[in-house]
Amino acid sequence: MSDGKVKVGIVGASGYSGEELLNILLRHPGVELTVATSRQYAGQKVRDIFPRFSHYPSGQGLIFEEPDPGVFGLKADCFFLALPHGVAHEYAAPLLDQGRKVIDLSADFRMDEAGIYQEFYGHEHPCPELLSRSIYGLPEIYRESIIGADLIASPGCYPTSILIPLIPLVEQELIRPESIIANSLSGVSGAGRNASIPYLFVECNESMRPYGIPKHRYLAEIEQELSKAAGKKIVIQFSPHLIPVNRGILSTIYVTPLDAISSAEEAHQWNEKLQTVYSEYYAESAFVRVLGMDRLPDTKNVTGTNVLEFGWQIDVRTGRFVLMSAEDNLIKGAGGQAVQSFNLSYGLPEIAGLI
Amino acid sequence: MSDGKVKVGIVGASGYSGEELLNILLRHPGVELTVATSRQYAGQKVRDIFPRFSHYPSGQGLIFEEPDPGVFGLKADCFFLALPHGVAHEYAAPLLDQGRKVIDLSADFRMDEAGIYQEFYGHEHPCPELLSRSIYGLPEIYRESIIGADLIASPGCYPTSILIPLIPLVEQELIRPESIIANSLSGVSGAGRNASIPYLFVECNESMRPYGIPKHRYLAEIEQELSKAAGKKIVIQFSPHLIPVNRGILSTIYVTPLDAISSAEEAHQWNEKLQTVYSEYYAESAFVRVLGMDRLPDTKNVTGTNVLEFGWQIDVRTGRFVLMSAEDNLIKGAGGQAVQSFNLSYGLPEIAGLI
Amino acid sequence: MSDGKVKVGIVGASGYSGEELLNILLRHPGVELTVATSRQYAGQKVRDIFPRFSHYPSGQGLIFEEPDPGVFGLKADCFFLALPHGVAHEYAAPLLDQGRKVIDLSADFRMDEAGIYQEFYGHEHPCPELLSRSIYGLPEIYRESIIGADLIASPGCYPTSILIPLIPLVEQELIRPESIIANSLSGVSGAGRNASIPYLFVECNESMRPYGIPKHRYLAEIEQELSKAAGKKIVIQFSPHLIPVNRGILSTIYVTPLDAISSAEEAHQWNEKLQTVYSEYYAESAFVRVLGMDRLPDTKNVTGTNVLEFGWQIDVRTGRFVLMSAEDNLIKGAGGQAVQSFNLSYGLPEIAGLI
Amino acid sequence: MSDGKVKVGIVGASGYSGEELLNILLRHPGVELTVATSRQYAGQKVRDIFPRFSHYPSGQGLIFEEPDPGVFGLKADCFFLALPHGVAHEYAAPLLDQGRKVIDLSADFRMDEAGIYQEFYGHEHPCPELLSRSIYGLPEIYRESIIGADLIASPGCYPTSILIPLIPLVEQELIRPESIIANSLSGVSGAGRNASIPYLFVECNESMRPYGIPKHRYLAEIEQELSKAAGKKIVIQFSPHLIPVNRGILSTIYVTPLDAISSAEEAHQWNEKLQTVYSEYYAESAFVRVLGMDRLPDTKNVTGTNVLEFGWQIDVRTGRFVLMSAEDNLIKGAGGQAVQSFNLSYGLPEIAGLI
Repeated sequence: MSDGKVKVGIVGASGYSGEELLNILLRHPGVELTVATSRQYAGQKVRDIFPRFSHYPSGQGLIFEEPDPGVFGLKADCFFLALPHGVAHEYAAPLLDQGRKVIDLSADFRMDEAGIYQEFYGHEHPCPELLSRSIYGLPEIYRESIIGADLIASPGCYPTSILIPLIPLVEQELIRPESIIANSLSGVSGAGRNASIPYLFVECNESMRPYGIPKHRYLAEIEQELSKAAGKKIVIQFSPHLIPVNRGILSTIYVTPLDAISSAEEAHQWNEKLQTVYSEYYAESAFVRVLGMDRLPDTKNVTGTNVLEFGWQIDVRTGRFVLMSAEDNLIKGAGGQAVQSFNLSYGLPEIAGLI
Repeated sequence: MSDGKVKVGIVGASGYSGEELLNILLRHPGVELTVATSRQYAGQKVRDIFPRFSHYPSGQGLIFEEPDPGVFGLKADCFFLALPHGVAHEYAAPLLDQGRKVIDLSADFRMDEAGIYQEFYGHEHPCPELLSRSIYGLPEIYRESIIGADLIASPGCYPTSILIPLIPLVEQELIRPESIIANSLSGVSGAGRNASIPYLFVECNESMRPYGIPKHRYLAEIEQELSKAAGKKIVIQFSPHLIPVNRGILSTIYVTPLDAISSAEEAHQWNEKLQTVYSEYYAESAFVRVLGMDRLPDTKNVTGTNVLEFGWQIDVRTGRFVLMSAEDNLIKGAGGQAVQSFNLSYGLPEIAGLI
Repeated sequence: MSDGKVKVGIVGASGYSGEELLNILLRHPGVELTVATSRQYAGQKVRDIFPRFSHYPSGQGLIFEEPDPGVFGLKADCFFLALPHGVAHEYAAPLLDQGRKVIDLSADFRMDEAGIYQEFYGHEHPCPELLSRSIYGLPEIYRESIIGADLIASPGCYPTSILIPLIPLVEQELIRPESIIANSLSGVSGAGRNASIPYLFVECNESMRPYGIPKHRYLAEIEQELSKAAGKKIVIQFSPHLIPVNRGILSTIYVTPLDAISSAEEAHQWNEKLQTVYSEYYAESAFVRVLGMDRLPDTKNVTGTNVLEFGWQIDVRTGRFVLMSAEDNLIKGAGGQAVQSFNLSYGLPEIAGLI
Repeated sequence: MSDGKVKVGIVGASGYSGEELLNILLRHPGVELTVATSRQYAGQKVRDIFPRFSHYPSGQGLIFEEPDPGVFGLKADCFFLALPHGVAHEYAAPLLDQGRKVIDLSADFRMDEAGIYQEFYGHEHPCPELLSRSIYGLPEIYRESIIGADLIASPGCYPTSILIPLIPLVEQELIRPESIIANSLSGVSGAGRNASIPYLFVECNESMRPYGIPKHRYLAEIEQELSKAAGKKIVIQFSPHLIPVNRGILSTIYVTPLDAISSAEEAHQWNEKLQTVYSEYYAESAFVRVLGMDRLPDTKNVTGTNVLEFGWQIDVRTGRFVLMSAEDNLIKGAGGQAVQSFNLSYGLPEIAGLI
């Protein structure tokens, strides 16, 4: 640390998640950002590539460097990895060997079991020995474990929006797990900053489309975490869709409660139950906004923030709950959540740099 | 008729559905458009209010007139009503009395029973005696009945996108009705051309939001039609969402088949079954594009056309079908479908003016 | 011809202009589309790649083929080339040798002089001998010459929007040529269907940006055509900008009249003069909508059509005219205009297939 | 002050500018926000109306109140007025009488002369006696005067984007004033949060359109400030356009230098001159980003920030400079700039609460 600040690096700082990490960490009061890597922009000033940050007081001299962990590993205490799935381990292993803390935004270290990874990602896990060392970085659920962790696997964007409303219900056995259906909508930044025709402006604007149905790889971590909360294996339905907004995820989740709802009175009681369960569960969570019943989420109320908001309706006609959550996929769904874990792991206020 | 063309009028021609009817009917080879009403623009030329149509050879002299059925009723044989719910009957009744044909785009005549209307629309039906006379104008299902009809209730936009994929499955008892969940996304034109803050550009752009959950009034006609196909009462889940596109509806529909799917082999058989059922059911339907399995819809493939396309996935893990449909809410979901019924009712080719 | 229809081919049918040509030509009453080439999709059905056209009665069996002029040249009488700049000549020369008609949408044959091409495009013109044979396919200006042409160079999107309002004023020496400033806005489809990061949805949405200033290559043809109209060399200012819409060009053009405006009375006289000049000049032009003064264009009034609309204001404070034009860059600015020339060259009604 | 913080109020806090002021002031380290008025939402919690701010630590209990200056005037030292033009004076006068500081975001106090106001706004100025007391709150130009001011007229969004690039050139007599043409593009939030059909999503999306040409009322303050910088009367051309983005203004400004450019060498010298002039002029201005030549602005690089960025090209063919500037219309063009003046007037760091 210098001036009591943690020296921090971002590996893969020119994608959308990396750019959001730059945005947050350059203004974080407890951070000195000393490393930003980018193969594409190596040797160029961060402020020239991302003029939008060039008036921030810090980072004026920061230069993108080649992603060589032998070199950059010496310059910081903690590294955020914002890399494609399947690549992060090449950096995580040597950095951990050098005694650095690693917060990874990819899926590489999110699975408890290498077999699940292989089932959903289609190839063998490259370093299964690190899986038991990593902590799933969902602070609202694993706050205590994150505090001591040196390898944090920050959750995926869709999983965050689905797990936060569901985990309390699953944990307390209030719903039938096999009834869970998550219908999710994502903005286009979720596809990354990659030159690809399906993500051109003209291909996305005035378009709405499903994709990755029925077995999207994010199911691996969603089902793992729900299963852990339930104490038994859970399989769910998950359907992502691409929507022409830059940012935002909206998940509409259908579940059937364990005890049937057959009257307005029962629906009323269920609503009070849900209100109580969620209020208690997230009492200490500054970034979870429980909207309650009849107040529906809107992604524009959360984009640009680290907040996940959710509400619900109770349908007495069908006997289902409809849970609806909204978050910014690049903040609560990526960079912001990773910084939240960072704050916890260094004993900083959980909201530092995030409000 | 003049030159063998049907004289046609549009009542309420300055909303989004009315404008789309203008667009279609001004170029329809079998139509002479003689009436377009608009309280707001009465006395002004259609070509001045909608310059986008001003180079069409027909309609050059057409002037918006006051919606007085005693006057305009004399000028055409068939009238399209593109009016808000609850108002259409004021025009339908006198026009029918004058021996005119009426194609109504509102919900006023879609219900078989006045009681259902009252339950979902919140007030007594204004002219229940006309309900038994009207035909639900979904040509793919009611083609024969439409041919002789003089009062056609053109279906709602969401219902069309949900009924076309579901009716064959319900009719043939292939799925469990209580499992049906329809998660639908709509473009903003669905809200009509009304000055209202929630539909301002800034409120919708970069926003995704659910609304009208859990008991949207479109459920009335969706459940009525599914129940008729099933021969028993069906209740479903329906969740609409507002998405920042001008046009388009995308419905993602979850259903559980009657016979469980527990292996890839069974999924394969189900796929062949679905392919057969739909191919036969829609063999004569030029505007239904059956995509089959693994080909997912995209609203941009149907906007600007009268086509509804849908495909499906079969999830062997959860045992569900995921049906996905896309349409243009103002064409197949409103004006285009109404013209399709018009064509049928006058013995014109079903595709006239629609390709 | 078969059934009196012209056999037509599209070379490069999978870019945005090629796709628009497919859209128009598949429904053109005087055309049988027999060839569509696409290196990328060779061997695949057009209806599978572009499902949006799959319900058109014609083209059901059309298959994309490799762009080999020795093969496809035998299958049609007229070819539209929708290829990148610098490539078209490889197809035009052999097709012309085979006696085919060629309508080229690139810049390759728009210049009268090879030297101007080299100045603006940065390399020697590949086949200068064809330049004198080609006709600049702006039907409103060169209608007579297009009728007999076998090599038509269809104008660029920006140039069309600038030339139509300016040519009558320049030709009649009403304005000071050196005062011309054209500030133009284009939708993103103008950049083509190319995988490139600057045209990703996220990079364009919520962005407005200038580019190619001050010497965009479209100046070559704009200045050539203005100079021909004036009978002397004209140099202008032209500034393109990228705007987050799929389609549309809006040009705001500033000019100073030859006779100063110093009173409201003079402004009034100028307005009458402009109204007369334009009404006469474009009296036969179905696709030019002269809005006059005080009625401003809007791209949404022309997108999806082959119409260019323009209006003007006269600023008595500054002494300038402000001319404002709008068009669909893919129709009047590309495929539609090319078909307009095609119609003329085959003696078909100019509007055939375009309304 | 409490805890050394300035007590501040926002009058008209539910429009787009008012909402942006809430966003900034709730997080401003030197501010205690004690008043937010809204006729529409009086009695409701700010956090319920604007959930997006509800996780900010401050403002938890803030309730919208009726805009009664006799009541709210007692609760703060400084008031921001975010009201429609023509209304602000009703609040400014009594607040000043009570010894409060007023920062007005409307046009009411921007004119030095009541006659100019009347010419452009179409009615007599309601309290001309306050005009001499107010300071035009463009901190980059009037930093010194703002420090002591108690009535600050914060500039308009378009004027800010035009004045910052032009004032140094006009002041130093480098350009011909009569050559100035400002072609500006604005996002839709510039139209305010008013229920009005032309600003509905469907009317703006996929639309580009000019408006208010040729004599938009913003010309009043643009010409006043340029004239003051020049020491003589300046009249310019200004053309605003509406573009489908939420936020952002892009101005492309054409000017002819006093000394002609007729060679690349002269262009080079001019570029060095411009670089020097601007670097010196804005050396102390943290929110002005001088891009120089060949680096073009993009609104997405400034939206969400208080930065105005601008660059230029020098056209040796036409002899003109093309200046291009970008800003966020609601921040540098409204709320952010007003807070910048607030900071100056209270002796706080100019960037407080703005980075």
